[in-house]
Amino acid sequence: MESMMIYMPIALALLGLIYMIVKQSWVMKQDAGDGKMKEISDHIYEGALAFLNAEYKLLAIFVVIVSILLAVVSFIVPTTHWLIVIAFIFGAVFSAFAGNIGMKIATKTNVRTTQAARTSLPNALKISFGGGTVMGLGVAGLAVLGLTVFFIVFFHVFMGGLWTNTMDMTIVLETLAGFSLGAESIALFARVGGGIYTKAADVGADLVGKVEAGIPEDDPRNPATIADNVGDNVGDVAGMGADLFGSYVATVLAAMVLGNYVIKDMGGAITDAFGGIGPILLPMAIAGAGIIISIIGTMLVKIKNNDAKEAQVMGALNVGNWTSIILVAASCFGLVTWMLPETMQMNFFGEGLIEISSMRVFYATLVGLVVGAVISSVTEFYTGLGKKPILKIVQQSSTGAGTNIIAGLATGMISTFPSVLLFAGAIWASYAFAGFYGVALAASAMMATTAMQLAIDAFGPISDNAGGIAEMSEQEPIVRERTDILDSVGNTTAATGKGFAIASAALTSLALFAAYVTFTGIDGINIFKAPVLAMLFVGGMVPVVFSALAMNAVGKAAMEMVQEVRRQFKDIPGIMEGTGTPEYDKCVAISTEASLKEMMLPGLLTIGFPLVIAFVPMLFGMDPLAIAEMLGGYMAGVTVSGVLWAIFQNNAGGAWDNAKKSFEAGVEINGEMTYKGSEAHKAAVTGDTVGDPFKDTSGPSMNILIKLTCLIGLVIAPILGGHTETGVANNDTEVSIEMTVDSQEITKATVDYSTVKNGIKTSEVMVFEGTKSEVEKELQAFEASLTNEAGEVEKVIEKVDISKS
Amino acid sequence: MESMMIYMPIALALLGLIYMIVKQSWVMKQDAGDGKMKEISDHIYEGALAFLNAEYKLLAIFVVIVSILLAVVSFIVPTTHWLIVIAFIFGAVFSAFAGNIGMKIATKTNVRTTQAARTSLPNALKISFGGGTVMGLGVAGLAVLGLTVFFIVFFHVFMGGLWTNTMDMTIVLETLAGFSLGAESIALFARVGGGIYTKAADVGADLVGKVEAGIPEDDPRNPATIADNVGDNVGDVAGMGADLFGSYVATVLAAMVLGNYVIKDMGGAITDAFGGIGPILLPMAIAGAGIIISIIGTMLVKIKNNDAKEAQVMGALNVGNWTSIILVAASCFGLVTWMLPETMQMNFFGEGLIEISSMRVFYATLVGLVVGAVISSVTEFYTGLGKKPILKIVQQSSTGAGTNIIAGLATGMISTFPSVLLFAGAIWASYAFAGFYGVALAASAMMATTAMQLAIDAFGPISDNAGGIAEMSEQEPIVRERTDILDSVGNTTAATGKGFAIASAALTSLALFAAYVTFTGIDGINIFKAPVLAMLFVGGMVPVVFSALAMNAVGKAAMEMVQEVRRQFKDIPGIMEGTGTPEYDKCVAISTEASLKEMMLPGLLTIGFPLVIAFVPMLFGMDPLAIAEMLGGYMAGVTVSGVLWAIFQNNAGGAWDNAKKSFEAGVEINGEMTYKGSEAHKAAVTGDTVGDPFKDTSGPSMNILIKLTCLIGLVIAPILGGHTETGVANNDTEVSIEMTVDSQEITKATVDYSTVKNGIKTSEVMVFEGTKSEVEKELQAFEASLTNEAGEVEKVIEKVDISKS
Repeated sequence: MESMMIYMPIALALLGLIYMIVKQSWVMKQDAGDGKMKEISDHIYEGALAFLNAEYKLLAIFVVIVSILLAVVSFIVPTTHWLIVIAFIFGAVFSAFAGNIGMKIATKTNVRTTQAARTSLPNALKISFGGGTVMGLGVAGLAVLGLTVFFIVFFHVFMGGLWTNTMDMTIVLETLAGFSLGAESIALFARVGGGIYTKAADVGADLVGKVEAGIPEDDPRNPATIADNVGDNVGDVAGMGADLFGSYVATVLAAMVLGNYVIKDMGGAITDAFGGIGPILLPMAIAGAGIIISIIGTMLVKIKNNDAKEAQVMGALNVGNWTSIILVAASCFGLVTWMLPETMQMNFFGEGLIEISSMRVFYATLVGLVVGAVISSVTEFYTGLGKKPILKIVQQSSTGAGTNIIAGLATGMISTFPSVLLFAGAIWASYAFAGFYGVALAASAMMATTAMQLAIDAFGPISDNAGGIAEMSEQEPIVRERTDILDSVGNTTAATGKGFAIASAALTSLALFAAYVTFTGIDGINIFKAPVLAMLFVGGMVPVVFSALAMNAVGKAAMEMVQEVRRQFKDIPGIMEGTGTPEYDKCVAISTEASLKEMMLPGLLTIGFPLVIAFVPMLFGMDPLAIAEMLGGYMAGVTVSGVLWAIFQNNAGGAWDNAKKSFEAGVEINGEMTYKGSEAHKAAVTGDTVGDPFKDTSGPSMNILIKLTCLIGLVIAPILGGHTETGVANNDTEVSIEMTVDSQEITKATVDYSTVKNGIKTSEVMVFEGTKSEVEKELQAFEASLTNEAGEVEKVIEKVDISKS
Repeated sequence: MESMMIYMPIALALLGLIYMIVKQSWVMKQDAGDGKMKEISDHIYEGALAFLNAEYKLLAIFVVIVSILLAVVSFIVPTTHWLIVIAFIFGAVFSAFAGNIGMKIATKTNVRTTQAARTSLPNALKISFGGGTVMGLGVAGLAVLGLTVFFIVFFHVFMGGLWTNTMDMTIVLETLAGFSLGAESIALFARVGGGIYTKAADVGADLVGKVEAGIPEDDPRNPATIADNVGDNVGDVAGMGADLFGSYVATVLAAMVLGNYVIKDMGGAITDAFGGIGPILLPMAIAGAGIIISIIGTMLVKIKNNDAKEAQVMGALNVGNWTSIILVAASCFGLVTWMLPETMQMNFFGEGLIEISSMRVFYATLVGLVVGAVISSVTEFYTGLGKKPILKIVQQSSTGAGTNIIAGLATGMISTFPSVLLFAGAIWASYAFAGFYGVALAASAMMATTAMQLAIDAFGPISDNAGGIAEMSEQEPIVRERTDILDSVGNTTAATGKGFAIASAALTSLALFAAYVTFTGIDGINIFKAPVLAMLFVGGMVPVVFSALAMNAVGKAAMEMVQEVRRQFKDIPGIMEGTGTPEYDKCVAISTEASLKEMMLPGLLTIGFPLVIAFVPMLFGMDPLAIAEMLGGYMAGVTVSGVLWAIFQNNAGGAWDNAKKSFEAGVEINGEMTYKGSEAHKAAVTGDTVGDPFKDTSGPSMNILIKLTCLIGLVIAPILGGHTETGVANNDTEVSIEMTVDSQEITKATVDYSTVKNGIKTSEVMVFEGTKSEVEKELQAFEASLTNEAGEVEKVIEKVDISKS
């Protein structure tokens, strides 16, 4: 059993994918309705396909360019293997494929949900959530499958499928990072491009349709209405899916990297039933278990009552969600105790090697699960209908748009307080439990329920679409009422899902950051060094500028859409009377092109900055390790600032949205009931206009920015850490240092040394403890071990710290 | 001459203060106009005094509480001397006194400017700028005077007025930090409280007066109008003055601290004509020279033509400004070459001791001057009338308030790009030239023109007030036209002045940060340690939450004002007809109370967080050095995030403001000229409403937040760095380490060691270079020196790095 464990995640991933196919065909078998409904649904489906095809073309070019670059790098840099190119391509393809599955099922499920809603709310939920489940399992299944298969392949290529040493495993994992980089690159296109698409279509449709022509939302006479509905799928389904696909892969990868360093800290090899790689397999096992758990969770989501309200639907989702979280906790307990040695040594900064029990790793995973759950509540508190912050924004709307905006901004800003304290606490706690391995496993545990989270997330836009189709095909009001219940719940889950996505991006980035430091072999990242501090500043600035670019992109794309809609209203005879057919596809094409064009600049910023920081100083002959530290400072700056701006923008946007929605049911302002159409409502609409790009474009893009930045760092890491300090690569120089310790008080000697192999240096630490004479003896023995049998220096001493008891 | 150099800054400061008194009496001698004008001016003067008195009461309580806390700390912690309490009190009193001078002269100059504007624009400029000059010289003179006097006193108390060693000098400077802390505490009240005051009054006056009652701005029938005019002085004069007073003192102090470490790096003592403290005296000398240079600069600001326009006035200010910058550069060259040793050793992180020439220190000061000049241009570009970003916001106003807001936000966000690159470049360059001493001196050089900058800054609100008085006293239109020219220039200088204030705060914080690290004796701040990283996150969050609290505070205070104005309109008969007199003082009282009350929470956040981070873990027995590193991470987080949010908020606010103002002269939107009163203008007004607290309250508050955070860290530093690693304080333990170097290739040995004296540990570095046998011999000699004559260990070896050639 234990020796087969390496194949286990593949089996579980395949199981998940099989269940996905079963679920998919069940959804497809449902009644897709008649005439008008089908027609609209087909329009949306085709629009989505059109976007995907355009995106894929651009993606293909992008993948080819990056592949060539990576190939060149792997040719020049001896520490980078060409297989990273293959991993990169497959990472991109897998992520794109997962997005494809999600988009297709979402655009097929929407009309089926509408049809079901004509008779039954429970069925409508079953179908829309079924679509979400397909999406979730597609993402999670492909992520785990791809990552595990490539790990096994590289494990055999570089190590012959058997443990040799941590350095070889480092090469395996460095190459595997290509898969993660590919996945995250797709996320850049899907999340940023999708975010621009969805808002450009939305704003364009609203500005001309609702405001200028005075026709309702989702009116089939509006040429941009199909693009608007496509946008929901592009942004909320495909974008979110690619985002979480990237997080999932990156988190597991980072945990594997840090697992390798646990083995290193334990002397470079461990004996266990898993071929000596238990700590490396553990994150994959947790991810695999998460797939099965998510399936169980999704099965629990159902309601019985046809007259159910939001609360019951939300309750059904909560049952599924909480069950999965608890099951993940249980499986983490089982897997940790089974797969990890009972006690491990881990190297804690400034404290040296510390012996920790495997239970502490389990506690770290619990930290991750708690963060995932709590961040959702925090997001819900700041953006939920009827909550205090929303009511305050509603009140402030009575004095105009200005005060509404200030209140919304302030809400988003204040919401960073509990969120950041939560993250800071999580970093601290999971590190205290089990070092950076603990941090990465906390992220892995949180991400284990990804399939479930995505199912909950994707069901929202599907229901939103279903409502749109009901409206456009002029169904009975009861149909729209039912889909509205689902949509309303979907809005809440969308907000909390964004919280989950930020938390996952934040923890993933931290895990990647930790992996980066260990990959480069630097001592840490000292921001008291001026160039590092300068890069921390630059890194902090990038998310701010990225957000601005994304917001401006929405504005530009929306303007193009506005002009097209105006043109159609003018040029197509009978369009307003319903006798002329709008050219939906033109609007879809404009959104598609504009969004992909406008994402170039922010994308370039994301990819370009780390490359410039890494390679420009190298041209000037700067020490690669110093560059590695600078790049680390940059990564930290991007992460800290990116997390802040993600929380700020998402929550401000969500809060404005719900403040506006509050007016639909009516709100009490200064003792008076106020409704839609009032001055206060108009002010709230202005707030929502500002909030839209915040919550759907620039805010969620931050996730990609911080993860991709850290991933690029990780991929560059071997180049920076590979050929380092002067002279170290000279294997033929003999170095030895004799130490005599003259005091009984000295009981501990810490020797920092490096092992040089094929010009690659990795740093290690050795600690000697005991009485004076014991330490003396051990130091002498160590000195003797400095050269290998061939008389060549394999180890270079860098520092000797001697402390007294 | 050289030996008297220590008294030189005092002499220059006194000279500046004498010139200030001369200028002050000249201004006071000017005609203050007649009846109505004088009456209004007196109202403003009394309102300002009312605010100052209320503020002083609160301040007195605050100063007493902090003094007691500091006294307790100095009683418990052996490394903190009770004289820090005295320094703190004087720092607070000096800063408050400088603010008092500024407020009084500003509120006396306004009416005299109006009176002069009745006949002559050149005279009006002369008077208003004269008032600004008094303000500027008051701040700079008192800052230099106070700092220098206390330095000399402590130099005599702790060192008998003669160089002993760097450790004694550290105690001198640690105690001197109290002066800086006092000054910055006042800045908290003046900048944050003042910022809330000015916007509460402004919004209150506008909302009820302009919007509800339909009367023009500055109409005497509006009860809040006096409060509004007082606010200009409270926020823009007293707030800005206290802000720069704090920066000035902190920068010079930090440069002195780092100068002390230069001496340490050079072996603990140098021989020069300045009693061996040339590097410590230099920053004070530059500050002193800056006062005289500023006087020269202010003398050059004049125009001759009564029909001059904005361009000429701006030109006159530029002549003065650029002349001072060039003169500071020249004086830096002179002082650096005169006061510093020709070559110095400085310890660069990771590179060890490096020999640098004094010219490199001069280059570092040039970096500071360049930053000061360039940041003003950057600010001007993003916020100036007629510039591209403003025109874009104007265009976006045509589609409503929502798009106007997005455009303004995006402009503020994008403006962080050049600003942060400039700062990052400045950190890098000034550090590369002369280490952190170079960074601190760059800041000092930039701040040398503080008096000139403040004169330029303060003349704006004075002219604004003059215009208000002209309006309220119903002068001929030509008077208002003339004051409007001055006011318009004043708006530009206000924006660029904010840029200067941010730059000064940023560089000051960096200098303080560097001083902090050296004070605590930590190795640096490694953000790869999880607790440090967690604190970096927390630090990044604080400016965001602080900004939100400040914005909300404005909202609350403004609401109180609105209610009072409404009440007066209702209760006072004949108020609208001009027969009843509004109760101006009630509005002033409300603004005063509300602003001081509302600044409590953000103030508490600023002061509380660093204290919690420092002392709570201490209660749990955490290693003080680990805490010091965490606190350093927090400081870095606050600084990076604070600088970003300061730039973002100031520039967004400034951009909205000028976008709105663009409509006054008319703007072309989509080929049509658009004016005040149009829908687009209304949208722009909404943007300005949002921008007001951004640019006048939360934005400028960031300066105080980051400086105060770093200063609190600096004051806590001796506590954290004072009683450190286990065993180090045991003077009676004998330690010695013998090293034999067995390879000819080894040419350099770096020994990190600590010197223990009275339980206080300071870290030092020793480098041995040469052939194998030479290094061996030197290491043995060093070993022998480890114990002193009494056989006690004075030095403890911590690390030995041996590198090959």
